[in-house]
Amino acid sequence: MRPPVEPFYAMEISRLAHRLKAEGRSILHMEFGQPSTGAPTGAIEVAHRVLDRDPMGYWDSPDLQAALSGLYKRRYGLVIDPKRFILTCGASPALVAALASNFMPRDKVVTARPGYVAYRNTLKALHLTPVEIPCGPSTHFQLAAKHLEEMEEAPAGVIVASPANPTGSIIAREELSRIAAICREREILLISDEIYHGLSYGEPAETMLAFAPKSYVIGSFSKYFSMVAWRLGWLLVPEGEMERVRAFSANMFLTAPSLSQHAGVAALDSEDELEGHVAVYRRNRELLLEALPKLGLTKFAPPDGAFYIYADVRHLTDDSMAFCKELLIATGIAAAPGIDFDPIDGRYFIRLSFAVSTAEVEEAITRLKTWFASRTD
Amino acid sequence: MRPPVEPFYAMEISRLAHRLKAEGRSILHMEFGQPSTGAPTGAIEVAHRVLDRDPMGYWDSPDLQAALSGLYKRRYGLVIDPKRFILTCGASPALVAALASNFMPRDKVVTARPGYVAYRNTLKALHLTPVEIPCGPSTHFQLAAKHLEEMEEAPAGVIVASPANPTGSIIAREELSRIAAICREREILLISDEIYHGLSYGEPAETMLAFAPKSYVIGSFSKYFSMVAWRLGWLLVPEGEMERVRAFSANMFLTAPSLSQHAGVAALDSEDELEGHVAVYRRNRELLLEALPKLGLTKFAPPDGAFYIYADVRHLTDDSMAFCKELLIATGIAAAPGIDFDPIDGRYFIRLSFAVSTAEVEEAITRLKTWFASRTD
Repeated sequence: MRPPVEPFYAMEISRLAHRLKAEGRSILHMEFGQPSTGAPTGAIEVAHRVLDRDPMGYWDSPDLQAALSGLYKRRYGLVIDPKRFILTCGASPALVAALASNFMPRDKVVTARPGYVAYRNTLKALHLTPVEIPCGPSTHFQLAAKHLEEMEEAPAGVIVASPANPTGSIIAREELSRIAAICREREILLISDEIYHGLSYGEPAETMLAFAPKSYVIGSFSKYFSMVAWRLGWLLVPEGEMERVRAFSANMFLTAPSLSQHAGVAALDSEDELEGHVAVYRRNRELLLEALPKLGLTKFAPPDGAFYIYADVRHLTDDSMAFCKELLIATGIAAAPGIDFDPIDGRYFIRLSFAVSTAEVEEAITRLKTWFASRTD
Repeated sequence: MRPPVEPFYAMEISRLAHRLKAEGRSILHMEFGQPSTGAPTGAIEVAHRVLDRDPMGYWDSPDLQAALSGLYKRRYGLVIDPKRFILTCGASPALVAALASNFMPRDKVVTARPGYVAYRNTLKALHLTPVEIPCGPSTHFQLAAKHLEEMEEAPAGVIVASPANPTGSIIAREELSRIAAICREREILLISDEIYHGLSYGEPAETMLAFAPKSYVIGSFSKYFSMVAWRLGWLLVPEGEMERVRAFSANMFLTAPSLSQHAGVAALDSEDELEGHVAVYRRNRELLLEALPKLGLTKFAPPDGAFYIYADVRHLTDDSMAFCKELLIATGIAAAPGIDFDPIDGRYFIRLSFAVSTAEVEEAITRLKTWFASRTD
């Protein structure tokens, strides 16, 4: 038996939120990173049609691989062989396949702290050694080339995420290029988690592939494409590695949901509708960035993309989990405690997801105002 | 970079079959273990309804857990806490979660040879050591307690499968009980793959849980429930281990497809329809067991359950892959080569799946007769 990996603390907040809701409280769910908008109309139409006519066997959709290749051409101007897209049951198994097919037990893999909790736990589950590098305001809460340069011993791999969870911060093109160069030089295998691409509010995020053709890129239909829990993602594998990595993925996970693959093709053709969602997030973000400082919340990671605000609340608490519970009970606003993303400094942070409706954001701001006023009275 | 795990050879056969089909040939797909019947009507109805009203966030359905608990009461007379069912994206990640949460690198895990190819490859992918025990006619091509008794050093774990893939053989109650006892005695962690339960043609398969409450049981909606590629399965975790194992599963895989979870509840309530499928398989099996001996194919593993016949063809070939290609090109019948399931003796075997229509089985028999007649001319 192995010792446990850590649970998601946000899950505990969410359970409490659902309990309060069942008791009749009005709850604003800002604790998870998931759009509440549902899949694009076209994707749902396709799903209805497929349900009625297709018995849906195990399958890797060549149309979806081709459509993804089209996405990379459109977004980044890159020409990618469709076969390089391994279709997976969401981004999570894509990460597992990338890690399992490239590393040996005890290999060190670098991640940013704060970062997505499942990086650390998945690395541990696969017997790898997570090396978390503290990333604060000076590098926009992100990994930078200098972090990898400064390491005495080169790690076996690094997971880069831009836009990142929990911060939303984007790594600039120049820095991506420097990271790619140092990884090439020190022979560090590069995994780029790009599941929040498409969700940015200034410069769009560049793909690591533009600088590091041998990197592994992870994508998902759960964020920009608003197909949460359809469990559809991809691992974009370097040229020449497709068959080798596909064998890992096929043995460990078989195929992605057939229905989701059909619908995914339509989602890739639904940009007008999806850009409408982005416009909502943009408005939500503006409202929060205007309101929060007035409440004394003035320090965030740069919210360049995704749909998060990672706010420094150290003037209010040194126990973000207790703070999130207090916030939830007092206001009905569910937020994720920073300790999910950073076991050390996370006690000073909370993450608010603004992937909700603008009305909900407005209501959250009203409630926060009232609560903060009552606290300072 | 790690060396490759092996590909599915049946996939290569399938690709050739699809190529021939595109050229206008009539193909009978008997190479994969998947029903062609589609999901139960009730499951599809629910899916349509959910598609229209539910944005489908990340979710573990308590209703599905409760319905699975009901299934275990009905099928086996066991009372299982619904929380013990971890819902997964099919049986594959359930196996990964069971292995990752219980074993350390180089731990030895026993499987039967012949057996499901992904056991060996997934064990290797997770840095564990597969120990394949040759299982022939004397133990119905199945693991038996004596195999575990005879091992000088007790392995860390064992994966038992009944009914098994590729053979369909079922382990009798008494033998399951003996396996459970020796595992308890020698402290071998027991993983029971029960994804073919519900598909048996004599005595129904018993669950390992009846004898080994601390075993890990894997189930799936892809076989009996005919929801192939909906990517829905479960890991039934021992009492007291739920939170620990759930943390592995949640971090590595997040949740199962939301739509499939909704539909799965309805599938568990569709037994009349599903027993209709079983009646078709039963008829198909009878037709094959009557016809094959007349073609000189007289030696099979006992086809007690699942929807496979694992036929000994050593009088015809010592290269099952070449034989399967020849068979496909000559007759349009796609079968899986034994080397997918047994790297040593598999060259003498082929696996035929009869999860097709009875008309297809009849057509396959007609074509086999013609082909065998032409071969012996």
